[in-house]
Amino acid sequence: MAAPARAGWLVSLMLLVLPMALPAQGEDGYELWLRYQAPTGVTITPPSSVIAACDSPSRTLDIAMAEVGTAFAKLANETVDRSDTLTDGGLLLISSECHHKFGMAATDFQALGKDGYAIEPRWIDGHRVSIISGNSDVAVLYGVFDYLMRASRGENLQVLWHRDAPTVDLRLLNHWDNLDRHVERGYSGQSIWDWHRLPDYLDPKYTDYARANASIGINGTVLTNVNADATVLTASYIGKVAALADVFRPYGIRVYLTARFSAPMELSGLQTADPLDPQVQAWWRAKVEDLYAAIPDFGGFLVKANSEGQPGPQDYGRSHAEGANMLADALAPFNGYVMWRAFVYSADNQDDRVKQAFTEFTPLDGAFRDNVLVQVKNGPLDFQPREPFHPMFGAMPETPLMLELQITKEYLGFSTHLAYLGPLWEDVLQSDTFASGPGSTVAKVIDGELHDQTLTGMAGVANIGTDRNWSGSVFDQANWFAFGRLAWAPDRSSAAIAREWAELTFSGDATATETIVEMMMTSRDAVVDYMTPLGLAHLMGTDHHYGPAPWVDNLGRDDWNPYYYHRADRTAIGVDRTAAGTDALSQYTEPLQALWSDPATTPEELLLWFHRLPWDHEMLSGRTLWQDMVQHYDRGLAQVSSLKDSWQQLEPRLDAERFAQVAQFLTIQEQEAKWWRDASLAYWMSVNGLTLPEGTAAPELTLDAYKSMTFPHAPGQGR
Amino acid sequence: MAAPARAGWLVSLMLLVLPMALPAQGEDGYELWLRYQAPTGVTITPPSSVIAACDSPSRTLDIAMAEVGTAFAKLANETVDRSDTLTDGGLLLISSECHHKFGMAATDFQALGKDGYAIEPRWIDGHRVSIISGNSDVAVLYGVFDYLMRASRGENLQVLWHRDAPTVDLRLLNHWDNLDRHVERGYSGQSIWDWHRLPDYLDPKYTDYARANASIGINGTVLTNVNADATVLTASYIGKVAALADVFRPYGIRVYLTARFSAPMELSGLQTADPLDPQVQAWWRAKVEDLYAAIPDFGGFLVKANSEGQPGPQDYGRSHAEGANMLADALAPFNGYVMWRAFVYSADNQDDRVKQAFTEFTPLDGAFRDNVLVQVKNGPLDFQPREPFHPMFGAMPETPLMLELQITKEYLGFSTHLAYLGPLWEDVLQSDTFASGPGSTVAKVIDGELHDQTLTGMAGVANIGTDRNWSGSVFDQANWFAFGRLAWAPDRSSAAIAREWAELTFSGDATATETIVEMMMTSRDAVVDYMTPLGLAHLMGTDHHYGPAPWVDNLGRDDWNPYYYHRADRTAIGVDRTAAGTDALSQYTEPLQALWSDPATTPEELLLWFHRLPWDHEMLSGRTLWQDMVQHYDRGLAQVSSLKDSWQQLEPRLDAERFAQVAQFLTIQEQEAKWWRDASLAYWMSVNGLTLPEGTAAPELTLDAYKSMTFPHAPGQGR
Repeated sequence: MAAPARAGWLVSLMLLVLPMALPAQGEDGYELWLRYQAPTGVTITPPSSVIAACDSPSRTLDIAMAEVGTAFAKLANETVDRSDTLTDGGLLLISSECHHKFGMAATDFQALGKDGYAIEPRWIDGHRVSIISGNSDVAVLYGVFDYLMRASRGENLQVLWHRDAPTVDLRLLNHWDNLDRHVERGYSGQSIWDWHRLPDYLDPKYTDYARANASIGINGTVLTNVNADATVLTASYIGKVAALADVFRPYGIRVYLTARFSAPMELSGLQTADPLDPQVQAWWRAKVEDLYAAIPDFGGFLVKANSEGQPGPQDYGRSHAEGANMLADALAPFNGYVMWRAFVYSADNQDDRVKQAFTEFTPLDGAFRDNVLVQVKNGPLDFQPREPFHPMFGAMPETPLMLELQITKEYLGFSTHLAYLGPLWEDVLQSDTFASGPGSTVAKVIDGELHDQTLTGMAGVANIGTDRNWSGSVFDQANWFAFGRLAWAPDRSSAAIAREWAELTFSGDATATETIVEMMMTSRDAVVDYMTPLGLAHLMGTDHHYGPAPWVDNLGRDDWNPYYYHRADRTAIGVDRTAAGTDALSQYTEPLQALWSDPATTPEELLLWFHRLPWDHEMLSGRTLWQDMVQHYDRGLAQVSSLKDSWQQLEPRLDAERFAQVAQFLTIQEQEAKWWRDASLAYWMSVNGLTLPEGTAAPELTLDAYKSMTFPHAPGQGR
Repeated sequence: MAAPARAGWLVSLMLLVLPMALPAQGEDGYELWLRYQAPTGVTITPPSSVIAACDSPSRTLDIAMAEVGTAFAKLANETVDRSDTLTDGGLLLISSECHHKFGMAATDFQALGKDGYAIEPRWIDGHRVSIISGNSDVAVLYGVFDYLMRASRGENLQVLWHRDAPTVDLRLLNHWDNLDRHVERGYSGQSIWDWHRLPDYLDPKYTDYARANASIGINGTVLTNVNADATVLTASYIGKVAALADVFRPYGIRVYLTARFSAPMELSGLQTADPLDPQVQAWWRAKVEDLYAAIPDFGGFLVKANSEGQPGPQDYGRSHAEGANMLADALAPFNGYVMWRAFVYSADNQDDRVKQAFTEFTPLDGAFRDNVLVQVKNGPLDFQPREPFHPMFGAMPETPLMLELQITKEYLGFSTHLAYLGPLWEDVLQSDTFASGPGSTVAKVIDGELHDQTLTGMAGVANIGTDRNWSGSVFDQANWFAFGRLAWAPDRSSAAIAREWAELTFSGDATATETIVEMMMTSRDAVVDYMTPLGLAHLMGTDHHYGPAPWVDNLGRDDWNPYYYHRADRTAIGVDRTAAGTDALSQYTEPLQALWSDPATTPEELLLWFHRLPWDHEMLSGRTLWQDMVQHYDRGLAQVSSLKDSWQQLEPRLDAERFAQVAQFLTIQEQEAKWWRDASLAYWMSVNGLTLPEGTAAPELTLDAYKSMTFPHAPGQGR
């Protein structure tokens, strides 16, 4: 080593080729929220050593100790050695099976539950140490990540006292990943599962994936698309899945698969997949045995059945419960679960699409086996920028309902729009179903409190792909992070999560954090405003769901058309879902029915979801519906411009590479927000014959120009 | 900064999470051959400064100077400042337009040609400096990369004197990348062209791609698949292509596109794409004008026409020349080129498939415009592990023939088999066509020397994708590197290139280099032995081309079947291509015809390509054909085991991440070499009824077991 490189000119020179010359800096986003950079101006005092209480630490505790070393090497440029004995200022990791070694009582662990942990300072044998304890090694690993992230945020480790335990059992990612690595609704490259080179090549990314998920408490992953391919259940693929499971196991992550209901026919030539057929039942039992032989902690199946062309029990005149129970019986001896999706609607059913899942499933309450969860999307339509909570929540007290959220932004601008989904999810979780009177929030349904469910779960459709930054954009990492945090504790505040993420992900500069949190917290409303204001929904382009297409009314099924969701004509817009209309409102509990049946007491943000109203309907603002609608579009676009300006001001406070990427994406978002606004207004005007309020910019292009745009190669399309 | 991290335990701790904790080290392969690590034990003395002779350096010279800074910061941990004046020990960059500034004469540059450069020490104004000079800024950039790579290999920079100029003009990558990012025959992730987020998002990888290519002299890239999509010629996509061209331009890289011959019909509704139709001609002229308005240095079109279902001039009764010339006329005013592929064969043509390109094209010699090159694959079939050189080389003296090589290993084990292609390409380039007597090598056809061509070119089908290491495996980077080196100078030795690459890519440890070069130089022959020994070819699985399937004989066209290429029965194997057979041999020049018409004077490595021989044919070894064939399979498999052993011995000399990846791939290669051997032998035995020589291992599975294997999601399939 000669003289150290001097700063100044060389630095600016190197910036020209930054990404390749200096991949070292990790500011390509690969490190996510685990960058372990101390906040500006904060000096971090590491523990004097890290001690595992067990004599032969498990692979999980090895990982936990390694993580401590990694973190403090970066946070404090210091080594934290492993020790076998207590040292003053040491960090002691204790899981329940080793509690006796340092004189702790088993009772100390009881309140923590299976996955909870405690971080606390204690005196032991005359040494002041910090202890991270839990009932399992994985619980301790969760505690270590919490401890290290708190260290990264500048908390004083010497006095850190914190206990936490999740209120939801199954905290799962759902990958809509096909076996050819195409990701349905994926906007961050292709599937990270390199099936062809598995099981013999284990990409280091698999380990990094498990580590990142463990750091936010995620404990399971469904590897394959709900539009399922039976091939994953062949022996060859089970071997590949087992290799991934081996990588994930020490991080506390179980693997799950999607089960194609017709697999017995496709893989073994059975004549039927009828769930009451003994041969079919035997086929699934044998398949499940094969799976557990290869993967002793296999989690179970996620099933999309009789929905959008997928096979299912109704093909044989059987109910969803009969289908789910058949799989559940095969899985029960191994403690596996069935997650049966409630996202069903039928071409043969002329009833309002948003009513069909409730109609289909609520009569089955109580009919499912104990190891079945019914997995319900947050709203009754389909992950729209805004829709009311799904009325099934609260309506099936005898059935564990698992909440399905969409982390990937199929309907909120793909990976280039900044849209922090925390507030959307918080809206849903804090919605009061009134199922057992006031305070019956969706969160309480999900965490089992409301109906004394012991099996609970939350699933997020992943936004992870091969892009170097995992999620397609830095800000989309926040949605992955927020999902993990909310799955652990559905009552958390999305703003607090945003702050935590921003501090960990960016510079730790206080001004930057304030600005970034503000940007995040306003971002989702901006998307709603420029895409689907006032309770509108499902106005996007056909198939790819990219950009506006409210005019589409020629698809094979009514309920695939945007027109079905707004029904705008010269006089009015919106869908009447009151008793006078489709009566979807009847699926909600009082007082919601009463409140929402009257436009005057319906939240304006859901107005056109429940009501069909004339364009000159008077709004709370005193303006007409049309005037307010235009204002929403303008406000959404203006808000994006404001996000862009805010970001520009952060340039000196952020690393160049991530700054540049977000800046470019905000430019795209501004263009596309304008496109949404202009195309939507051009269309509404063609329908209602109205003009724009004075001072409002006219759409840039003609309606025909917007209609003629095509995007044959837009990413993430279904296949 | 507190105490520096100590070595020892922490290091081993961090290795557990290496990829994420320390992406810094760059040993994930992203840095390719531009790691700038000094060889073990060598101290590198950097220049005292870097000086650009021009007063206002171009973007290209800025990049060159930045590269010098990047390199020595890593090679010597020292800063090399920019200077405006000469300093002792300085590095002076001079392109011809600024030659006067330091008293050089224009004549100093003449011999260098357009892209050549000189690196030389000189005394100027009393200062001893190193000069890198060339006739263009890009030529200087080539010189800078050469200088820096020589520095990395430990050459003494103070006395470095080196002149070099390419002998081939167009040194191009061909990307078989679809607009949906699927890469046909791609085994390293998806296309790096993120079309959806272009033109507003410029992935830093685009810059790194241009830099890597410039470092090995590549000066053009065809962005799109030869199985072309006309969509890339729409205004929206031209804008995206222009954004890439802007990134590539300072690196001396021009962009090219594939032109779908029927584009005028598909994009504009013309009733014909007949190249003699004035409307069609006008359409292409207008399209070319649009392209040059957006991309002033657009390179031109690569065209696959009337081949494997692609549209072309023959659809209208016109010749390949008429089709090519129509496009050439549109491009000529802008100095654009047409590269017209000779890879044609027809379902209607019952003649030997390997004869058809020659038959079709040689009569057109002299009929092409001056800006047309006919692009010819190295052999007459299709990038097989081994085939004879293509007889078109030497047979079209009036036409510039461009050599097309395949860098991606469609037929040599995808990205998991170690197969260095340098020797394959060297075999082709050094093949003597005898077109103008002895010494008429393919290299001399390509570089224009043999027939006084002034327009010359070489194309390589890229193996680049979104995998972090670019090419799917570290060793496949060598094939990209070797292509660049051979395109620059087709007479280079593949062994010398291997050594250069190994030194730059790995540790600079002499023992490691020796072993790695040895591994590389034996690797291709191993693949030939375990896949297609003794002149066999095209024995791979249908569609995906993964694994062995010599038994396939049921495809829609005879010449798609492996059987067509070996025709094995109980008595004999091979294709008689002498005058007694298909007479493909007649396409070669004497004395090749005479030599190769007799099995005794045909190289054994091409024996069954030209001859149909009984299984008991006596070989040079004195053994029978069958015995020798079995020995080849065994030798190939043994050689892979040997590669694996050699690699294991290098573990202490290499970085952990790349070591582990290659080790895993070699395990896969060994399994698959055994699969090729076993399945092939099982099939041949089922045909010839012979038994294996004593002491030879029987195939592990039955022939039926091999036949029943399916790989529906193997990567890189055509669509």
